Amino acid sequence: MKDKIRESKILEVRGTRRKALKDLLARESPVTIFLNDVDLVTLLCTPCDLENLAVGFLFSEGLLKGPQDIKKVFADKRDGAVWIETYAGKRPSRKAISKRLITTGCGKRLSFADMGKGLRKLDRDGRPKLSPDYVAEVMKRFQRASNAYLLTGGVHSAALADERGTLYFGEDIGRHNAADKVIGQCLIDRGDLEKLVLITSGRISSDILAKAARGRIPVIMSRAAPTDLAVRLARALNITLIGFARGHGMNIYSGEWRVTIQGPGRERKHS
Amino acid sequence: MKDKIRESKILEVRGTRRKALKDLLARESPVTIFLNDVDLVTLLCTPCDLENLAVGFLFSEGLLKGPQDIKKVFADKRDGAVWIETYAGKRPSRKAISKRLITTGCGKRLSFADMGKGLRKLDRDGRPKLSPDYVAEVMKRFQRASNAYLLTGGVHSAALADERGTLYFGEDIGRHNAADKVIGQCLIDRGDLEKLVLITSGRISSDILAKAARGRIPVIMSRAAPTDLAVRLARALNITLIGFARGHGMNIYSGEWRVTIQGPGRERKHS
Repeated sequence: MKDKIRESKILEVRGTRRKALKDLLARESPVTIFLNDVDLVTLLCTPCDLENLAVGFLFSEGLLKGPQDIKKVFADKRDGAVWIETYAGKRPSRKAISKRLITTGCGKRLSFADMGKGLRKLDRDGRPKLSPDYVAEVMKRFQRASNAYLLTGGVHSAALADERGTLYFGEDIGRHNAADKVIGQCLIDRGDLEKLVLITSGRISSDILAKAARGRIPVIMSRAAPTDLAVRLARALNITLIGFARGHGMNIYSGEWRVTIQGPGRERKHS
Repeated sequence: MKDKIRESKILEVRGTRRKALKDLLARESPVTIFLNDVDLVTLLCTPCDLENLAVGFLFSEGLLKGPQDIKKVFADKRDGAVWIETYAGKRPSRKAISKRLITTGCGKRLSFADMGKGLRKLDRDGRPKLSPDYVAEVMKRFQRASNAYLLTGGVHSAALADERGTLYFGEDIGRHNAADKVIGQCLIDRGDLEKLVLITSGRISSDILAKAARGRIPVIMSRAAPTDLAVRLARALNITLIGFARGHGMNIYSGEWRVTIQGPGRERKHS
């Protein structure tokens, strides 16, 4: 837990009462990812599960195709660094990643088509199929799982679940990093992303949706809101996007065919 | 409002009831910033107040010193582009910005000292001085100000306030962009950031703190949590950092001397 949380003196003000006390803060540290000895990127993150973070990040950025590419991963928490060696050993261009993250780099504006580039449409058939009860149950457990959030109010979390329940769980001050951590962990375990559900504590924007799409993860869900661009991408790629999953309610924005109808709801028309 | 919100068909599930309806989503669009005809960066943002966004972003990144540098700003909403010309007319290196945003680019890991680089310590004296009542009142108004949030649940907001109340207000799907929008607007108006309070709806991480520091904004506050790194930076730079500002309570993490003591609290010891 000490990777995630740090004690700090604060002054608590409640009405006219002031009290000096110690409180717990979410830790944030710069961590540099070295790919084949090139220092590619420095992420501001919660300094835990750094191997997972690095593998997930490189995969999301298209710099790793999968676990079969990885020769070695080594993280030095104290130094805030992760080294990854691939079998191919190719030294990446730092330019490639900055383009990918923040600019098209081609003298043009980014279009909707650009955003979906390299992302293939998913099959409409196949697993998983989810019931509303499953969504409610998985989300309830997810909400309670983050001790770091309960203690600090300052971290996001992400999880990967199959039809039976949660397989991987990650925490980070950044919602992108938290998603990369669970995706990275699944890849290191040589798990099959293509049958899983990605759960995030944060809003679903296009870049989070793109992480699911890159991993061919067919379902993404959150208790928070999606953006219109994430919804458009999800529809174009046949990804099921569920937002505002709270209690026994949810909004399905895309790919509702993966959510099975149960109980009396089946018979009812749109009421 | 149509820049911020888009209508979309959704399937609402409540228990066993399913209902197809139209809901409102927060808009997200790629917007490219051209500085002296170089396409510097593409941001995913809420496509409103693009001039403010571009000016605030370039200022936060150290690519604009202030409003006196700006010859012309022109935004094309439909094309998702903002052009900024400076009097110096220097074409920026795209490399500079990618380094700044995501990597040290010097073969080393980023240190705490690196993060504060170029950021000068603020004076402990001077304005603003805030009372707990002021904080409560400004935060109450801030919470109610974002129509886009009330309608979609999917946007962040930021504001700049002086001792009398809010001067600038901005909304964006990204908390960084929302802060850049209000900072940019203040710069375009040739306002004085050095006496203002930056309010954000999001968590205060080191990169948001650095935006305040770059503008020499002495106070930053949020109803959400800060990270430990943001608190360390705030202390090193004499910035007042207030988190969990809710109702008549708040936690002061740094620079408590800018918050005046009122009422019976003055006489009380830490109880």
